[in-house]
Amino acid sequence: MATINRNYLKLPGSYLFSTIGRKVKEYGEQNPEADIIRLGIGDVTRPLAPSIIQALHSAVEEMSKEESFKGYAPDLGYEFLRDIIAKKDYQERGCQIQADEIFVSDGAKSDCGNIQEIFGVENKIAVCDPVYPVYVDSNVMAGRTGEYDVASQRFHGVIYMPCTEENGFMPELPKEVPDLIYLCFPNNPTGAVMKKADLQRWVDYAREHKAVILYDSAYEAYISEEDVPHSIYECEGARECAIEFRSFSKTAGFTGLRLGYTVVPKDLLVEGVALHSLWARRHGTKFNGAPYIVQKAGEAVYSLAGRKEVEEQIAYYMGNAKIILEGLQAAGFEASGGKNAPYIWLKTPNCMTSWEFFDMLLEKANVVGTPGSGFGPHGEHYFRLTAFGSRENTIRAMERFKSL
Amino acid sequence: MATINRNYLKLPGSYLFSTIGRKVKEYGEQNPEADIIRLGIGDVTRPLAPSIIQALHSAVEEMSKEESFKGYAPDLGYEFLRDIIAKKDYQERGCQIQADEIFVSDGAKSDCGNIQEIFGVENKIAVCDPVYPVYVDSNVMAGRTGEYDVASQRFHGVIYMPCTEENGFMPELPKEVPDLIYLCFPNNPTGAVMKKADLQRWVDYAREHKAVILYDSAYEAYISEEDVPHSIYECEGARECAIEFRSFSKTAGFTGLRLGYTVVPKDLLVEGVALHSLWARRHGTKFNGAPYIVQKAGEAVYSLAGRKEVEEQIAYYMGNAKIILEGLQAAGFEASGGKNAPYIWLKTPNCMTSWEFFDMLLEKANVVGTPGSGFGPHGEHYFRLTAFGSRENTIRAMERFKSL
Repeated sequence: MATINRNYLKLPGSYLFSTIGRKVKEYGEQNPEADIIRLGIGDVTRPLAPSIIQALHSAVEEMSKEESFKGYAPDLGYEFLRDIIAKKDYQERGCQIQADEIFVSDGAKSDCGNIQEIFGVENKIAVCDPVYPVYVDSNVMAGRTGEYDVASQRFHGVIYMPCTEENGFMPELPKEVPDLIYLCFPNNPTGAVMKKADLQRWVDYAREHKAVILYDSAYEAYISEEDVPHSIYECEGARECAIEFRSFSKTAGFTGLRLGYTVVPKDLLVEGVALHSLWARRHGTKFNGAPYIVQKAGEAVYSLAGRKEVEEQIAYYMGNAKIILEGLQAAGFEASGGKNAPYIWLKTPNCMTSWEFFDMLLEKANVVGTPGSGFGPHGEHYFRLTAFGSRENTIRAMERFKSL
Repeated sequence: MATINRNYLKLPGSYLFSTIGRKVKEYGEQNPEADIIRLGIGDVTRPLAPSIIQALHSAVEEMSKEESFKGYAPDLGYEFLRDIIAKKDYQERGCQIQADEIFVSDGAKSDCGNIQEIFGVENKIAVCDPVYPVYVDSNVMAGRTGEYDVASQRFHGVIYMPCTEENGFMPELPKEVPDLIYLCFPNNPTGAVMKKADLQRWVDYAREHKAVILYDSAYEAYISEEDVPHSIYECEGARECAIEFRSFSKTAGFTGLRLGYTVVPKDLLVEGVALHSLWARRHGTKFNGAPYIVQKAGEAVYSLAGRKEVEEQIAYYMGNAKIILEGLQAAGFEASGGKNAPYIWLKTPNCMTSWEFFDMLLEKANVVGTPGSGFGPHGEHYFRLTAFGSRENTIRAMERFKSL
């Protein structure tokens, strides 16, 4: 008799963004005249840049001719893409990462969700609170946690690292030593960043305790300030303790195109085994490569013209971030983030819960945001807005905030 | 201290096709003048059909304009694609499958590899021997098997169902009752097919024992004979015991484009829980949708023109299959398959092992095939050739076989 993976039953309710989608859909159906502005899910809205469109058309043409048709991609990604990533994202920034340490995938969400598979089920994870839900949920599914505790809104067996107003939304080194540490900077959802010296302390801590850092760097392209590391490999010793995830979604508007990559340095040994070989086995067994045409689009992001175009898009979104941050502050809200990240983290007024504020904002202002409590209990009484709307919608949303 | 998933260490050597790729690469480097013909990996070679190319260009154009740009796809796939799949692949063939039971993905390999996650680790799997390696390897990684036994070339704790010359390469209902049964028809690697009455016996067996059938139907488009089911849902009661995997890779040449889907009927309950809800949770948490442009390409496969074009491609490959099957038989080989599948399964001459024959064929004829033993111990002394080469290369390969 077949049985189910009962760990799935530990997960309370549905995935955060599915719930938001359902609520917004229902509201829209009941209020067909409502002009809803979506600043909730972190989805881009600018069209793909001209260099990327050109690369896609050109790759599609290649697929139409026998002599240039491409079947299965190499397991770990085409060399043309892995080479340029290693060079531009790492070597030119002084990080010693080689092309064969890059694993091209269909996005950072898949990789962040799947990476836990190569670790033992007995590993204890540490996550920031609030946190991107995929890190915890994928470990719950794998049986690496206990049951969900409704009162504390936490899973037993997980080390939560509160990120609060008091600590500037920066996690502190945990007293109970974890085996796997998820860090995401620039942070989703708070928009906070970690300075290089601070990140170095985490690398030193991980090496001292033989823990592995799973570093989500999906928003590095939004960093505008000095002394904020774009990669964990800027820190000394990170090659021996850290895996890094990168995404083309927010860097170049690939949310609907799907491309990301994961870096597993060959120096990273756990119990004497190279994690590189385990991740390669996982990739080779359960994945069949990102589409050729999408990998060619990824390559175009690194061309001179492509780079300039995507930097303009990022500047556009960061212009929105500034409008939101200043708009919220002018409207009397406490808000942070938005300087090195496309996320603005605001405190709900009058001690409203995050979902109360979500409903009020949807109904009174027809603006969609993301309830902070969806990211963990320390996200309660907070709310996330994203800079990924159009300029016009961002300005209109801020006007509606003023008259709340 | 972090620990690894030690189940990975049970896997002997690398993934079959990675080993073949390495061997061929080394041979090519040592013999740069060799004119190597690849009939090994099941990768298509015909360019994408005109209707698909047109759909891709058109979708790329949509991505270039703000008003038609598409970000994140719906978790489970765009409705336009799920609707047409449900209608054309199921309802018009008399199978009661609804659009919301279709989960669009980046390919059947990912889905076949990931599906085991929603089942308990204590489930015992049954697989054909020989078998597509992903079914077993993904269960080894999850800890659902014992150690690998070098002598028998089998994992402890797995029920292997021999498919031999004696039983016409058809598995028999296992005496030890499994919880999860992997079946693939038309079969990879043997090219054998199961008649409807035979498949019905498996469905009845699964229902009787509360087992779940994981039915890989990636090659259904190659079926040419009557009374061979294209879908397991042609059998009575399959909605209550079977999950089906489909791929656009072999149907429409999408190996480099990446698109597939999985059907999880809502009537399929295990321990009272709908597997549909578990797979939806898995999809929503660890996957972010197939690219919009690729889903539009998938839709084009179902247009009148697209359908006609891909049928011509399939006829082309099946013409190759006929040439291989007849060529092998004329050259004195025992061979089968190739009538309802793009695979031909031949017996090695003079009791050579599969790898001995691989090396001999590569060196003497510069032809690459797949050693049958790579698919399991009952594949030893067999060899797989695929019909996916060009017509010219297929004919040339058969000439080389004659002069072996």
